[in-house]
Amino acid sequence: MWGGRFAEGPSAIMREINASIPFDKALWRQDISASKAHVAMLAHCGIVSRDDARLIEGGLDRIAGEYEINGVPEDWDLEDIHMTTESRLAELIGAAAGRLHTARSRNDQVATDFKLWTRDAIDQVDAGLAALQRALVTRAAENADSIMPGFTHLQTAQPVTLGHHLMAYYEMIRRDRSRFHDARQRLNQNPLGSAALAGTGFPIDRDMTTQALGFDAPTRNSLDAVSDRDFALDYLQAAAQCALHLSRLAEEFIIWASQPFGFVRMPDTLSTGSSIMPQKKNPDAAELVRGHAGRIIGCLTSLMVSMKGLPLAYSKDMQDDKPPVFEAANLLGLSIAAMTGMVADTTFRTDKMRQAAEMGFATATDLADWLVREADIPFREAHHITGAAVKLAESKGVALEKLSLEELKAIDNRIDEGVYPALSVEASVAARSSLGGTAPEQVRIQVATAAAELGITV
Amino acid sequence: MWGGRFAEGPSAIMREINASIPFDKALWRQDISASKAHVAMLAHCGIVSRDDARLIEGGLDRIAGEYEINGVPEDWDLEDIHMTTESRLAELIGAAAGRLHTARSRNDQVATDFKLWTRDAIDQVDAGLAALQRALVTRAAENADSIMPGFTHLQTAQPVTLGHHLMAYYEMIRRDRSRFHDARQRLNQNPLGSAALAGTGFPIDRDMTTQALGFDAPTRNSLDAVSDRDFALDYLQAAAQCALHLSRLAEEFIIWASQPFGFVRMPDTLSTGSSIMPQKKNPDAAELVRGHAGRIIGCLTSLMVSMKGLPLAYSKDMQDDKPPVFEAANLLGLSIAAMTGMVADTTFRTDKMRQAAEMGFATATDLADWLVREADIPFREAHHITGAAVKLAESKGVALEKLSLEELKAIDNRIDEGVYPALSVEASVAARSSLGGTAPEQVRIQVATAAAELGITV
Amino acid sequence: MWGGRFAEGPSAIMREINASIPFDKALWRQDISASKAHVAMLAHCGIVSRDDARLIEGGLDRIAGEYEINGVPEDWDLEDIHMTTESRLAELIGAAAGRLHTARSRNDQVATDFKLWTRDAIDQVDAGLAALQRALVTRAAENADSIMPGFTHLQTAQPVTLGHHLMAYYEMIRRDRSRFHDARQRLNQNPLGSAALAGTGFPIDRDMTTQALGFDAPTRNSLDAVSDRDFALDYLQAAAQCALHLSRLAEEFIIWASQPFGFVRMPDTLSTGSSIMPQKKNPDAAELVRGHAGRIIGCLTSLMVSMKGLPLAYSKDMQDDKPPVFEAANLLGLSIAAMTGMVADTTFRTDKMRQAAEMGFATATDLADWLVREADIPFREAHHITGAAVKLAESKGVALEKLSLEELKAIDNRIDEGVYPALSVEASVAARSSLGGTAPEQVRIQVATAAAELGITV
Amino acid sequence: MWGGRFAEGPSAIMREINASIPFDKALWRQDISASKAHVAMLAHCGIVSRDDARLIEGGLDRIAGEYEINGVPEDWDLEDIHMTTESRLAELIGAAAGRLHTARSRNDQVATDFKLWTRDAIDQVDAGLAALQRALVTRAAENADSIMPGFTHLQTAQPVTLGHHLMAYYEMIRRDRSRFHDARQRLNQNPLGSAALAGTGFPIDRDMTTQALGFDAPTRNSLDAVSDRDFALDYLQAAAQCALHLSRLAEEFIIWASQPFGFVRMPDTLSTGSSIMPQKKNPDAAELVRGHAGRIIGCLTSLMVSMKGLPLAYSKDMQDDKPPVFEAANLLGLSIAAMTGMVADTTFRTDKMRQAAEMGFATATDLADWLVREADIPFREAHHITGAAVKLAESKGVALEKLSLEELKAIDNRIDEGVYPALSVEASVAARSSLGGTAPEQVRIQVATAAAELGITV
Repeated sequence: MWGGRFAEGPSAIMREINASIPFDKALWRQDISASKAHVAMLAHCGIVSRDDARLIEGGLDRIAGEYEINGVPEDWDLEDIHMTTESRLAELIGAAAGRLHTARSRNDQVATDFKLWTRDAIDQVDAGLAALQRALVTRAAENADSIMPGFTHLQTAQPVTLGHHLMAYYEMIRRDRSRFHDARQRLNQNPLGSAALAGTGFPIDRDMTTQALGFDAPTRNSLDAVSDRDFALDYLQAAAQCALHLSRLAEEFIIWASQPFGFVRMPDTLSTGSSIMPQKKNPDAAELVRGHAGRIIGCLTSLMVSMKGLPLAYSKDMQDDKPPVFEAANLLGLSIAAMTGMVADTTFRTDKMRQAAEMGFATATDLADWLVREADIPFREAHHITGAAVKLAESKGVALEKLSLEELKAIDNRIDEGVYPALSVEASVAARSSLGGTAPEQVRIQVATAAAELGITV
Repeated sequence: MWGGRFAEGPSAIMREINASIPFDKALWRQDISASKAHVAMLAHCGIVSRDDARLIEGGLDRIAGEYEINGVPEDWDLEDIHMTTESRLAELIGAAAGRLHTARSRNDQVATDFKLWTRDAIDQVDAGLAALQRALVTRAAENADSIMPGFTHLQTAQPVTLGHHLMAYYEMIRRDRSRFHDARQRLNQNPLGSAALAGTGFPIDRDMTTQALGFDAPTRNSLDAVSDRDFALDYLQAAAQCALHLSRLAEEFIIWASQPFGFVRMPDTLSTGSSIMPQKKNPDAAELVRGHAGRIIGCLTSLMVSMKGLPLAYSKDMQDDKPPVFEAANLLGLSIAAMTGMVADTTFRTDKMRQAAEMGFATATDLADWLVREADIPFREAHHITGAAVKLAESKGVALEKLSLEELKAIDNRIDEGVYPALSVEASVAARSSLGGTAPEQVRIQVATAAAELGITV
Repeated sequence: MWGGRFAEGPSAIMREINASIPFDKALWRQDISASKAHVAMLAHCGIVSRDDARLIEGGLDRIAGEYEINGVPEDWDLEDIHMTTESRLAELIGAAAGRLHTARSRNDQVATDFKLWTRDAIDQVDAGLAALQRALVTRAAENADSIMPGFTHLQTAQPVTLGHHLMAYYEMIRRDRSRFHDARQRLNQNPLGSAALAGTGFPIDRDMTTQALGFDAPTRNSLDAVSDRDFALDYLQAAAQCALHLSRLAEEFIIWASQPFGFVRMPDTLSTGSSIMPQKKNPDAAELVRGHAGRIIGCLTSLMVSMKGLPLAYSKDMQDDKPPVFEAANLLGLSIAAMTGMVADTTFRTDKMRQAAEMGFATATDLADWLVREADIPFREAHHITGAAVKLAESKGVALEKLSLEELKAIDNRIDEGVYPALSVEASVAARSSLGGTAPEQVRIQVATAAAELGITV
Repeated sequence: MWGGRFAEGPSAIMREINASIPFDKALWRQDISASKAHVAMLAHCGIVSRDDARLIEGGLDRIAGEYEINGVPEDWDLEDIHMTTESRLAELIGAAAGRLHTARSRNDQVATDFKLWTRDAIDQVDAGLAALQRALVTRAAENADSIMPGFTHLQTAQPVTLGHHLMAYYEMIRRDRSRFHDARQRLNQNPLGSAALAGTGFPIDRDMTTQALGFDAPTRNSLDAVSDRDFALDYLQAAAQCALHLSRLAEEFIIWASQPFGFVRMPDTLSTGSSIMPQKKNPDAAELVRGHAGRIIGCLTSLMVSMKGLPLAYSKDMQDDKPPVFEAANLLGLSIAAMTGMVADTTFRTDKMRQAAEMGFATATDLADWLVREADIPFREAHHITGAAVKLAESKGVALEKLSLEELKAIDNRIDEGVYPALSVEASVAARSSLGGTAPEQVRIQVATAAAELGITV
């Protein structure tokens, strides 16, 4: 295959380390599409004859059919998906097959295929994320008034609504979608026609393949086009951030499902039991989503390190671009789907949430605010008075609003019974009505905006 | 400071591990700006009096002046830049200082400050990258015709022009700028007014601070706003990709400067010598740029891991967001500046490059193409014939075009003397005139487009 | 400084990117020690005169005194700690200073200094980890009988003892110490005398400096000795694993301190409050320890990437070895100390733990085991019967042992009242007395073994 | 399978995300061995009958035979290798199969299996590294006198011998083997018998399985034993460092194979050609080895992130432990084998190396040394004089020793013709005879020591 210069063929270890067909067969659809666009252009430009082009297109369609039914054969001697398909084409249509590779090289071919694959992966992930957003918004709408403890440092801070909490994830996913969208835009330049590295002398029409393959424009520099894997890194970076968001939600579900919290009852369909502990119902899906964040970050690291310090143009190190992207795409797809199921089907135990919100002195800030507002006490002093009230309530093991007026007055005489309404979790939540705040009215605005963005009714 | 509930102050180890002032003092300008915007809004909304607001603004300006001249004092007991400034404000203006913190918390304050800082860092990096692009385009314009070996696998592949090679980096940097631009857009939502996590009951006007601070809109969910560090990750991801591009260019300079290549003479201003080897001129700046890619990737990893699995809302782990961003920004700024100097001031030894292009049988593809085109030989056979010619030339230690016609005819009789012109590196380069290809005419088009984008004349 | 070949000095950007003195000044003690060992050897071998050696040693001692009191001056023109010290030596003792650098180069000098620094850092971390182990064993001894829920998947699984749980961390730290110990052993080869890369022609005695500096042997290959940073990676890898262990313990403390758990009351000395929420007591130290795991992993990544693909021998990229090691050492030291304080001073609310252990059907396995053992029922059937009992108890909101005998018999008639003793958490814990199990007797054995290893009495 | 508590089975997404059988089937041999050791112990302790034990052992042997021939079936409903085997055992031997799982759980079972697998992987990598060392030592012995340029910063520094250069890698691999050896020792504690997390009430004998499986001792704490994945991280860390060493050697081969260097002719068996450039011979194997370093580092990152912040005991995130270890082991094995082939079979073009050593003024240090030694000139002045000589030679385009005596005397009159012998590369190399230096006599000592360590004759 390399012509007359090689005295010996590859060693066994070389065949194994060199073969990319075990993984790059995943590119077969894109490889067929790109080849068809290429040969149509070659024919249009008079570089191959119409007859040869027709033969080639027919052969490619037939190969696609074979792959669809039987899968792609893995022959290490054919190295990769490009050679595998070309060799099969030669079997099917004979010498004309050789004309397909005119004015291209594997370097621009693989860049094109892999970009197309990544673009498809982005479109899939976007659809998955939209579904997750729909689930979040639906459950948020149901729970715009459900009160739960808002935590900072996992310590009860202030009461919030469950709807508000879920909508925080809507926002994260919104940024994720925007990140994938940016990645798609930046990716969408067509490398085909860059040939090995220097362009080609054949009178090709790169705009034609650009249009056929749905790219926005041809790449502008052939050396860059075959050396560039930014699009794969963009994908992995967006995937990593998305996985981090999912890991946070997963962590919350795991903690919420733990007996001392008991905030949720996970769906049976996304839990497992134990073969020896009959009472167990484990949040395996959430844990796997959290764990997968590690693997997706590992995939990103992998490609960054592989690309570091590579001179131009194509180097074989770049063959290590695909396994991490394929793995990340698979893990992310599973994670999004699992999380969507969890959001949609989890039973929120809003009674337990509300009960927890009423403990932990979540409305202490409201007491301090009342002191500032109603008794005109400077905040720092109000903070101190409230601290003393919390201390007393804690020592008695009761909630703040269960302290008697005498007890409160003993701490600071300016407190009167007008304070009690401010100490309820409802009042606390309703008060925080600034834009983006946790007040049910605000949550409903957030939900309505989101529903409009998604084109759904909730 | 925490009110009456704490019996003991922090231990020595707690003071040290908890203090962020040693690094977050870098935020002082942003902290002052955000505080001024906040208090102006509070006054406008009638939450603090005009007089108090004027006092606070005056105090903040004075503090800014002090910091400018004397730096920010590092007192661990004041923990962070926010407390440091607020405490100094209290010294300067007394009790009114306490009103500044109305309707905000450190959680939204730090998110705001850090976003502003990151936005400034993006603007600086964009300016640096534009300068690097100008240097690349200028040198590319000078070298649109300079022939060098194009490498794949660091093996001589086909002749290219130096201008073409430099313009490949122009394209990479173009993507980097677009990535930073996307990051800036996604970042530019104002968290101020989200308070601790749930929003606030004070009748604030978030649109007013949004406008004052140059944000596009307020963030939409207060829980998300204080829990979000996507903007820092976006910055680090863009920085990591940019650093990878610079590491590739650095690698090339290092290899090119090595004696066996001798393609460049590095500027004295960016090299060092050796204290014991008097002949040495080391490409230290390029090596540091390459090494810094490792550290910037490490910064990205750091923050991804720290954020993994954090429940909402703010957790103290998030204090580990700033050191990696600050470090990456510093290293990236130095790397871009060093690389700009290197591109601008390196002497390209185009004679050595051209000489190298003439070796290594770089025009073998052109011989094969000639056989296809002129002698109507199928490519696979042409490839084989060329292989034999290369083998002969190699064994004789001469270039392809130094083989005599008899020698070539002995390999294949269909070769005639018309082949010789095709074997020159000029002919090879000129032939590759497809869009984005290495032909000087194409390089000049790329250069002209880029110059127009940058608004420069070359 | 580079002799006659450089027409121009470094540019401003070069001075900044090249200067390592801002961080490598941390090596000053090691640099002085290594220089003293080197000059003593030179004198012993007759390479420098006794008088010059005495002058040099005196000068170095004086410089050490200056650094001790005033710190190391940061002059970018002197680049690094080695030049800074040598230049000060020349000021102090004149021309003889120039003889110190005989038969060495900065390449072997910095490798030696950095190894010595890392060795010291290992010794410090080992002392810190021993203190943490002592705290763990002491608290484990106190709580060998304290019953808490053992979790898998953060779901109540089986009752365990708190002592058992704490001793699990003792084991992790034991492995950490063994890892640092291995790193120290592998590090402890002396690179001094390798010179720039090729060794030296001076008749030096490498065994002499080896002994003086506490190394086990001289390195065996000079090219390797100046190119090697394995010891720094070994340190960072051990640090990363240790940080991961600490992050797990930190996560547990954070969850345990959350109100719904309430298993611990964190020491005031390691907590913070909130400036606006007076009831808050945040586990900041634990969160910072967890966050620092991210940064330490980032440090490891950083150096791995920087070292990837570097040709021999020394390359300037390797100057990026120190910042990640210094940062990791600082963060790890703080994390260990903070965690030691937390283990020692946290109040374990064993009442709440026990109460939680009694919920969540933690002894369901014990019911199944009883059915196997006493009623000779196959395990799979026993598991099923127990599942039904759990379901009933869950629906009634009671613990398993609160089901009446009739209720149990209605599920399976073979159950008799002998079952009740098996369902207590004490019985459950006591039963698991296999080697390494949670039974108090086993925990006491683990504690005794550990105390003996640490040389303490508990 | 989870008993009576689950109303619904897993959803499709749950089946897919939860199934580990697609990768953990790799553990089948270890799973069978551990089960056989376990049942033998159960029988010996009277926990299962001899007859049942014999049945189970026979069944397991038969399953092993089936797997050997037909591979392990992948049924997602059976989740993992443990359930797959147990379910097949039940088909083969009926109810007795259920007794195998007595006194163990999947938690200790998988920890045991995975440790055994990792231990085997360590043994394999050690054998591979020993073969690589043999190749290095053999080629070093052949080339103990072959002179090449020694580089720092990829700039010609001083002449070294090729043997010396190759032995530097011997040292790196020696450290790698020691690292894997340490990992193996730390790993070799038996978790079997720790059960789910708390140990077991059955009277098991953990020492017996410990001995049967070749472990050194039982683990000491059951909670730790099922939560620990240090051994996997130790493996990955050792693999990452080894991959970094290989990436450095790969980088050197790639640079050396590039035409301007031409130091090596890579073996045909480990190279590829180009389908369009007939002259190409690409160092693909070396590039893949370099690229794989990225993926192996990615694997390490992956598991570190997945383990971060996991509470005790087992969490499902830990199922993400195996894919990175399996991937790294495969990539490392291929990399070592490929690199061994490359070292063994590459043709070193020692003529080109020597020629390069004679250029680049590699013996400038020797001139400076001569001035110090023979003309008693202070080093700093000698360095300056040499710099002037290098500048002159450079401008004339000749080597240092080609400058005439008049030319040298014009620079400094103290130079006489005695200097010329010192300027040859042979003299330079021979002079550096300090321990570990590049002098052929030193290299032969290094080779002899290494050959003795490896038990080979060279």
